[in-house]
Formats: sequence, structure tokens, C-alpha cells
Amino acid sequence: MATHKLLLLPGDGIGPEVMGEVQRLIDWINAQGIAKFETEQGLVGGSAYDAHKVSISEGDMDKAKAADAIIFGAVGGPKWDSVPYEVRPEAGLLRLRKDLGLFANLRPAVCYPALAEASSLKREAVEGLDIMIVRELTGGVYFGEPKTITDLGNGQKRAIDTQVYDTYEIERIGRVAFDLARKRRNKVTSMEKRNVMKSGVLWNEVMTQVHAREYKDVTLEHQLADSGGMMLVKAPKQFDVIVTDNLFGDMLSDIAAMLTGSLGMLPSASLGEIDAKTKKRRSLFEPVHGSAPDIAGKGLANPIAMISSFGMALRYSFDMGALADKVDAAIAAVLASGLRTADIKSEGTTAASTTQMGEAILKEL
Amino acid sequence: MATHKLLLLPGDGIGPEVMGEVQRLIDWINAQGIAKFETEQGLVGGSAYDAHKVSISEGDMDKAKAADAIIFGAVGGPKWDSVPYEVRPEAGLLRLRKDLGLFANLRPAVCYPALAEASSLKREAVEGLDIMIVRELTGGVYFGEPKTITDLGNGQKRAIDTQVYDTYEIERIGRVAFDLARKRRNKVTSMEKRNVMKSGVLWNEVMTQVHAREYKDVTLEHQLADSGGMMLVKAPKQFDVIVTDNLFGDMLSDIAAMLTGSLGMLPSASLGEIDAKTKKRRSLFEPVHGSAPDIAGKGLANPIAMISSFGMALRYSFDMGALADKVDAAIAAVLASGLRTADIKSEGTTAASTTQMGEAILKEL
Ligand SMILES: CC(C)[C@H](C(=O)O)[C@@H](O)C(=O)O
Ligand SMILES: CC(C)[C@H](C(=O)O)[C@@H](O)C(=O)O
Repeated sequence: MATHKLLLLPGDGIGPEVMGEVQRLIDWINAQGIAKFETEQGLVGGSAYDAHKVSISEGDMDKAKAADAIIFGAVGGPKWDSVPYEVRPEAGLLRLRKDLGLFANLRPAVCYPALAEASSLKREAVEGLDIMIVRELTGGVYFGEPKTITDLGNGQKRAIDTQVYDTYEIERIGRVAFDLARKRRNKVTSMEKRNVMKSGVLWNEVMTQVHAREYKDVTLEHQLADSGGMMLVKAPKQFDVIVTDNLFGDMLSDIAAMLTGSLGMLPSASLGEIDAKTKKRRSLFEPVHGSAPDIAGKGLANPIAMISSFGMALRYSFDMGALADKVDAAIAAVLASGLRTADIKSEGTTAASTTQMGEAILKEL
Repeated sequence: MATHKLLLLPGDGIGPEVMGEVQRLIDWINAQGIAKFETEQGLVGGSAYDAHKVSISEGDMDKAKAADAIIFGAVGGPKWDSVPYEVRPEAGLLRLRKDLGLFANLRPAVCYPALAEASSLKREAVEGLDIMIVRELTGGVYFGEPKTITDLGNGQKRAIDTQVYDTYEIERIGRVAFDLARKRRNKVTSMEKRNVMKSGVLWNEVMTQVHAREYKDVTLEHQLADSGGMMLVKAPKQFDVIVTDNLFGDMLSDIAAMLTGSLGMLPSASLGEIDAKTKKRRSLFEPVHGSAPDIAGKGLANPIAMISSFGMALRYSFDMGALADKVDAAIAAVLASGLRTADIKSEGTTAASTTQMGEAILKEL
């Protein structure tokens, strides 16, 4: 049995607590002899800053490059609000994405039936919702140069950010979206602002070409990102796969996540290109929620998004789709049994701590 | 009695129909001797392209500069999807905003009690909602240079858009937001992505300074635009005034509009700086909805957003707050009476065409 190398980066806030539940799941898989995972730990974000005055150390970057997959918790918190910009907690995550070439960010927005009531939307608008947002993750305004603040004198400063996209970057994220759609409901909606942005014009053009050349069997629709955001709030179930750039993807995937009422439940995967020789791809898996410093260390955090992110690792990095399905089913079963962490509790349900929730899911397995 | 010069730019799609109802309201005001409005008409968007092969003619730009206020319908439609980028319908609107210096875009998101049911959100989440989104409108990625698509050879192109903000641009939009908050519930939430964008860092810094120097009596909160978008969907009533940049404002104001269930009802105002001598400011008023080409020419369009935009003109450009209040009250009364255009109809209400709705509002007045 091959050994899979995992790097665990718990990060800040509730990160270490929810990662603890993944560690327990990994131990169980190893003990059962289902697979062989070897784990290392590293620091990222505020915790890396506290230890080394950087948001991720070179040593941990090396470990990240050597790992078969990275399991990431969450970064940030008020404690590091005034550290220098270059070493703010988020910089560690952004560097991992960029240096490992993790250009494809998959963010499923699924509404768990047991939780439809937790959404601010009406039940009929979200029940059964199952969207996949495919966000470009290594380009656009996140990384384009120049990215500067200049002092102009007379008390004036000028800030500049640059959105850059090349054809190949749009092509490869398009292919990820179309390939996913083929395994789902066969529809891709591409969102940009071509009426205002040149990058939107190119985005639209390249998506149209990739579709015409390689994916005629999939339905492709284009929507302006602003009206796409509206449609997401009004009637989200019309979407299957949404593909969009780094910044629009940041906004739209968070909104989609909030629609489901299940923010503490949603996982994400960030994938690199498939190596022609090894057939492997770099990958990082993280929950959509943040570090929630207000509840950190209290055993209140919901570990489901983190566990479900590990499920995505099983599916996308280790070809263990069957085990991933079992993890998903175990989560659904535990929810159906009425167990709830504080963020999703409602009348008639049973309160659970982080650990109790993690244990219940393991028991289901 | 002073004469007020209005330029009416109906534009495309349902623009001319809904503008017709404003024209009727203006005629009534003139006939009643309440004020004296002189109107001119111009072309913008696709209709200007069809006539002159530009999105707005120099002659109409001159009229726009000479007017006391511009009343704008909507632009765009599939008919002009493949006209050259420089003369696409939206370019006319963008030029008006930029050349007239209309930097402050006010977008109220109000949930009419009679329409709370039309929202995809639960009634309790949106009933009584009253937010004011203040969007910067002449800066950011909409106008920054370079804004290009370059052919790199080997079938590769590179698209670039540039987000630029100077201190003074952030200061003046901040003041608009704080001034509005003082007349409302005294709270401003500033949204940016300072964890990723340098323009977000400067935005945050300048808002904090303006607040500390001039508006200590107002509460200022900062939120990242992605989590701000989430909060808007989860619990919109926590907000009073939201101030944000051009692109985030585009996304967030559309989402806020959709929350109310009243997209066809929401107006907007775009204001320039107050001239030190004349105390006047340039201004343009337009509905938040688009040109809805699918229902154009059928008498189905809801004229309320357009009429309510004219109400904002009365309030912000002509100091006729009392008359503006009456217009708002007339709209609310007609809605309470059960009259509905097709976009907002529900069981037990009475169907109305564009004209019938316009007439009913006039009758209330
Ligand atoms: C933490 C932050 C840099 C990040 C982003 O903006 O991409 C986060 O919001 C996300 O969506 O993963
Ligand atoms: C028509 C378009 C250029 C415009 C914008 O993006 O600003 C519209 O979406 C708006 O919000 O007024």
C-alpha cells in the first residue's frame, strides 16, 4: 500500500481544534488499514508570525511542496491586525496558492436538508441546492503587478492594484469547470464584467472558444457578475457549475455559501495542474469558514467543513471516491440524528462540542 | 419661480416606457405650478448607436453638461452585443458618470412592506429593511489605466485592468456616506479587501482618518467585502449606510437590491461635487434595474423605480424634499391598494400595465 504524505497546517483561531478532528479520522483510516497516511505539521498565518515573524516559514514551504496534499485550517484574527502587510496571516495562504500553482478552487455550495431552516432564504429557494463554484485562484487582481501605494506629496497617496489574465489561465480553469459539469448536470455559467473590464472581454472570449472546441456537449451560459450575484440570491437552483475569476469568485462563493445556511459545513479544494509524467497534481484543502477568533479554544467550533475538506482530499488527490462518499454519508447521518454544534443548533436538536461531533462522525463510519 | 433644466435620456429596452411615466409626472408638476421644469430629450446607449454610431453624441454630452439634472432610463440589449467595445451601450453611461464627475452613487435598498413576500429571503430577514449603499462611481477598476488586451503571439492574449484610488477620492465619498448616516441611523460600514488589495489598505486608512477628524459622532465599522456580502445575505438589517468602491459597489448594491424583492422599485442617484460658488452639483438619476429587452414595448415594465429616481432628483438636486416625500407616499399607497405590475404580482392583487401604474401614482398625488 502506497504511503500518502499529508501536511497539516492548522493555522489560527479554531483551526487547531477542527484539525484535531481530521487527525482523529486519519488515525482511524490508518488503523483500519484502509490507506496509509503519513502526517507532518506546520505553522501558517498568525501562529507562524508569532513563532518566526513570517506568515509561513521556508521550511514549511518546502514541506508543502513535498506533500501529496495539504490540509489547511484557517488564518487570521484581531491579534495580528497591525503586523506589517507582507507578513499578515493571509499572506501565508496566498503564497501557498501561488507558489504551488493551485489555480483551481472548487467550492461546492450544498444545502443539507436537515439545515435548510438555518438559511436566511426561504426553504423552497435553497432546499436541494447543489452548486459548484470554480474560482480561478492564482491570477487576477490578487497577484497582478503593479500593486503599490505611492506617496504623491500634499497628503495624497495613490493605491494601485492590477488585474491580469492571460489566455492560458482562462483556458485551464475553463476546462476544470467543463470537466466537472460533465459529471454533474452538464451546465456551466461563466461570470465576468465584460461591459466594464477588458479581462472580462477576454474571459468571455476564451470560455466561448474552449467550449466550442472541446465541450460542445456541455451547456455554456454567460452572465455579468453583478446580475449573476443577483440571480444567485433570487433563484440559486438554476445553477450547476459557476466559473469565475479570483475576485468575483471570492465574493460569489461566499455569498453562495451563506445561502445554504451551512457556512460551518462547506469544504473547498485548491488544485494545481496535473503533472504529465507523474499524473499527480498539487492540492490544498480548506474549510470555507474563517478562523472565528471569538469562539476559538472553547470547543464550540463546527468541525464538519474541515472533515468534509479532508473528504475532498480523498476524492480529488487520492482517488478514494468511495471512502469520500462514506465520509459525506456519515456527516449527513449525524446531522439527521439531530446532533448540532452551536452554530447550527435549533429547537429539538442535541448540542455537541467540536469533539463530540467529530466522534459521532467517526462512529458512523 | 426658477426654471429647472432636465435632460431626459430614456435609452433602450423598457427605458422609453418608464420614462414616459416620469414625463407625465413632470407635466403634472408644471401644470400645478408647483415648480417649473423644462425638459430636453437625448439618445444614449444602443439607440444612440443606431442613430449616430456612438453610445452618446457630443451634442447630447453638451446638453448633459448644461442640465440641472439628468434623468436616465436604461441601456443595452442583445441587439448591440457585437458592436465595437468603445461604442457599446454601457460606454455612454460610463462617459456621463466620468465626464460629469458623478463620483457618489446613492443606492437605497428598501423593502416595501407590501412586497416583503416577493423576496427570496424570509420575511423576518427583510421586512423593514432600509439600507443606503454609497458606491464610488468615477474611480477604481472602471476607469484606471492601463486597460488593454494585448496579443502576445502563440495564440496568447493578455488582458489588463487597473484599479486606482487616490486619497481625495476616498475622502470625498467617505464624507458623502458620513453625512447621509447623520440623517439616518448614524452608522457607516466601509467594505474593501485590505487583506488582498493595496487599494483596500488605503481605503481603510483614509476612511478611518476622515472619521477620526470629522465624524466622531458617527459609528464606523470596517468589513472585508466578501464577508460583508455574506452578512448582507444573512442579516441585512444590521446595516445603515455601506460605503464601498466602484466594483464592490456594483456587486453589493445589486445583491442588496435583490434582497428586497423589489428590484423594479429601486432608484439611484449619482452626484458630483458641490460647486463652491453656485452651490449646485451635477446629478444623474436612474433606476437600478436594466433595460429588460425581453419585455420592452409590451407595457409590462414597472415604472416605480424610474418615478422614484425622479423623486430622488427632487430631493437631492432641487431641494424639494416635501414633494419627494409625497411621491414616495403615493407609491406606497398605490402598492398598499394592491395594484401590481407583472414583475411583482401575487395572488389577490390587481394587474396593472406601465401606464396604469403611472396614472395611479399621479392620481394619489
Ligand atoms: C483569507 C483571504 C485572503 C481569502 C481570499 O480572499 O481569497 C479568503 O477570503 C478566501 O476566500 O479564501
Ligand atoms: C451598465 C453597467 C456599466 C453598470 C455598472 O457596471 O456600473 C451597471 O451594472 C450599474 O450598476 O449601474
